[in-house]
Amino acid sequence: MAGGAGNRLWPMSTEETPKQFVDVLGCGKSLLQLTVDRFAGICPIENVWVVTSAKYASLVKEQLPMLPAENILKEPCRRNTAPCIAYAAWKIKKRDPSANMVVTPSDHFVADVQEFRRVIDSSLNFVNGSDAILTIGIKPTRPEVGYGYIEAVLGNSTLSNKEVFRVDSFKEKPSYEVAEAYVAKNNFYWNAGIFIWNVSTIVNAFRVYQSPIASIFEYLMPYFFTPEEQEQVDARFPECRNISVDYAIMERADEIFVFPASFGWSDLGTWLSLHDNLQQDINRNVAIGGDVRFADTRNCFVSTHGMKRVVVIGMDNCVIAEKDNNLLVCKMGEENRIKDITD
Amino acid sequence: MAGGAGNRLWPMSTEETPKQFVDVLGCGKSLLQLTVDRFAGICPIENVWVVTSAKYASLVKEQLPMLPAENILKEPCRRNTAPCIAYAAWKIKKRDPSANMVVTPSDHFVADVQEFRRVIDSSLNFVNGSDAILTIGIKPTRPEVGYGYIEAVLGNSTLSNKEVFRVDSFKEKPSYEVAEAYVAKNNFYWNAGIFIWNVSTIVNAFRVYQSPIASIFEYLMPYFFTPEEQEQVDARFPECRNISVDYAIMERADEIFVFPASFGWSDLGTWLSLHDNLQQDINRNVAIGGDVRFADTRNCFVSTHGMKRVVVIGMDNCVIAEKDNNLLVCKMGEENRIKDITD
Repeated sequence: MAGGAGNRLWPMSTEETPKQFVDVLGCGKSLLQLTVDRFAGICPIENVWVVTSAKYASLVKEQLPMLPAENILKEPCRRNTAPCIAYAAWKIKKRDPSANMVVTPSDHFVADVQEFRRVIDSSLNFVNGSDAILTIGIKPTRPEVGYGYIEAVLGNSTLSNKEVFRVDSFKEKPSYEVAEAYVAKNNFYWNAGIFIWNVSTIVNAFRVYQSPIASIFEYLMPYFFTPEEQEQVDARFPECRNISVDYAIMERADEIFVFPASFGWSDLGTWLSLHDNLQQDINRNVAIGGDVRFADTRNCFVSTHGMKRVVVIGMDNCVIAEKDNNLLVCKMGEENRIKDITD
Repeated sequence: MAGGAGNRLWPMSTEETPKQFVDVLGCGKSLLQLTVDRFAGICPIENVWVVTSAKYASLVKEQLPMLPAENILKEPCRRNTAPCIAYAAWKIKKRDPSANMVVTPSDHFVADVQEFRRVIDSSLNFVNGSDAILTIGIKPTRPEVGYGYIEAVLGNSTLSNKEVFRVDSFKEKPSYEVAEAYVAKNNFYWNAGIFIWNVSTIVNAFRVYQSPIASIFEYLMPYFFTPEEQEQVDARFPECRNISVDYAIMERADEIFVFPASFGWSDLGTWLSLHDNLQQDINRNVAIGGDVRFADTRNCFVSTHGMKRVVVIGMDNCVIAEKDNNLLVCKMGEENRIKDITD
């Protein structure tokens, strides 16, 4: 899934170039490229499908030159994750009706790629030949209010994979107090938006729980891999309800499972989360790009693209970010105000 | 005097383009241009002399196209204010031995230009035909530790100008406690580095108190206004002692007078002083250049040249300055650290 337009990381992430296409870590690769790299050894590139807005298709092509062009699915408009996933599921199903499928955002961070691969491999084994809907639950390391939570039913003697548990319920982003209570228990996990299932399972789930969306893709399926595909998708996709897969399927279906995991995951949704995931100096400062000099400064994050030199003196706990001659100076944790101001 | 290389306002002021050549107020004119404008009505442009480093001569020419080229005096190296003033004094004396002379820095700010002109006119009348050395003393508005102070002897019944007083002593930049004590009295003034005298007075003062410097300019005088001037100045000027006019003359001479004045003066030596002298919004923020947006931000100063948009969120009491792709983010008042870091 590469259609988002994250603007909490403005000016690094903009409507024209959202963060999945940006080298936010300063490592030479965009988050999308890192996400594809993460699946090396799990599946070949021909089996990678990128769903994105039509306007980002050329960015995807540019950043993933080895990806077959037909593997880029172009949404004519944003309809949240449920229609996005349905499009990919029906398309993959047409090519291989028994395929197993991993759904992942393309703008997240994973520190321990080896453990990620082990978890995904194990998850694919779990869903193969079953009708299980499996999500990855991240073992929480702090009472984070920016994530949804998954409540698991511990005790799983009947399941084939001892690391997998049944889901009791999905929880919306909590208050701080509620998040503290979740973390104090040992059966609440962050919802990372990563799902594993057999294509027939998710297609059936759409048929049961979101039949209007299912009908649209049943109609579209004959056009997939034909010259009329885009025209038909452009005509019918906008009819899809704007709904997340969590609301559309997860919270309604019965056989939902969670694989609790720890692979150094972050959604990089805020400057703070980005700061926490990068190499910090002794004063907990992070600098990306150019010649950055700190004096008497702590807990600061500097990310610049066009600056020759940046000097930061006497600052604490703030973000300094520049891209394309847009500049943000923001108290860490106040990023939710960026959207209001830049809109 | 336009030879300084103020680096406390980095990156706005740099070695290549020091602040006297920069439009630091965002008004469309550099401080040098504003300084020359301030003398309109006091003397014609042919009587304006600019002493600067040789490397800034073209900047002066560019910014003051109406200034006769020979009125730009080019120092081959920096030797502080005493040799700078001596050069101008001897040169002016050669053209007009009875000229009166105002010495002024070119990188300061004056809010009330009308009052400035009144004070300077009155000062010129006072020194005309006398051997008085007159300085302008700025009535202090706060216990500033960044300025030197002038202690006056109140009671001046013998003087021709009732606004002028004898100087008791010059005081170095004080500690905060000492500055508070100065301000509590009513006979201490900020030393603005503005001097008024007859050229013969200052030439004689150099002969008495700085005879090595005087000898150099006596030697050079015959070359002034000849094709050999620059070559001779380049050869001999470096021999001058590196010393300020305050140490060289003011603190030694006897007949020193002060004209206490209030015309909204600032040396703009720090970002804080610049912030205090510009139009502030209701949250005491100042923005120069580009599209600057503040949220939950107070007492901040933003000065950018190359930015399309600047967003500042949740900040207090800081400076954000960008020029030529150099960026400073600095706690207000910590500017004295800039030099160490950018060197």
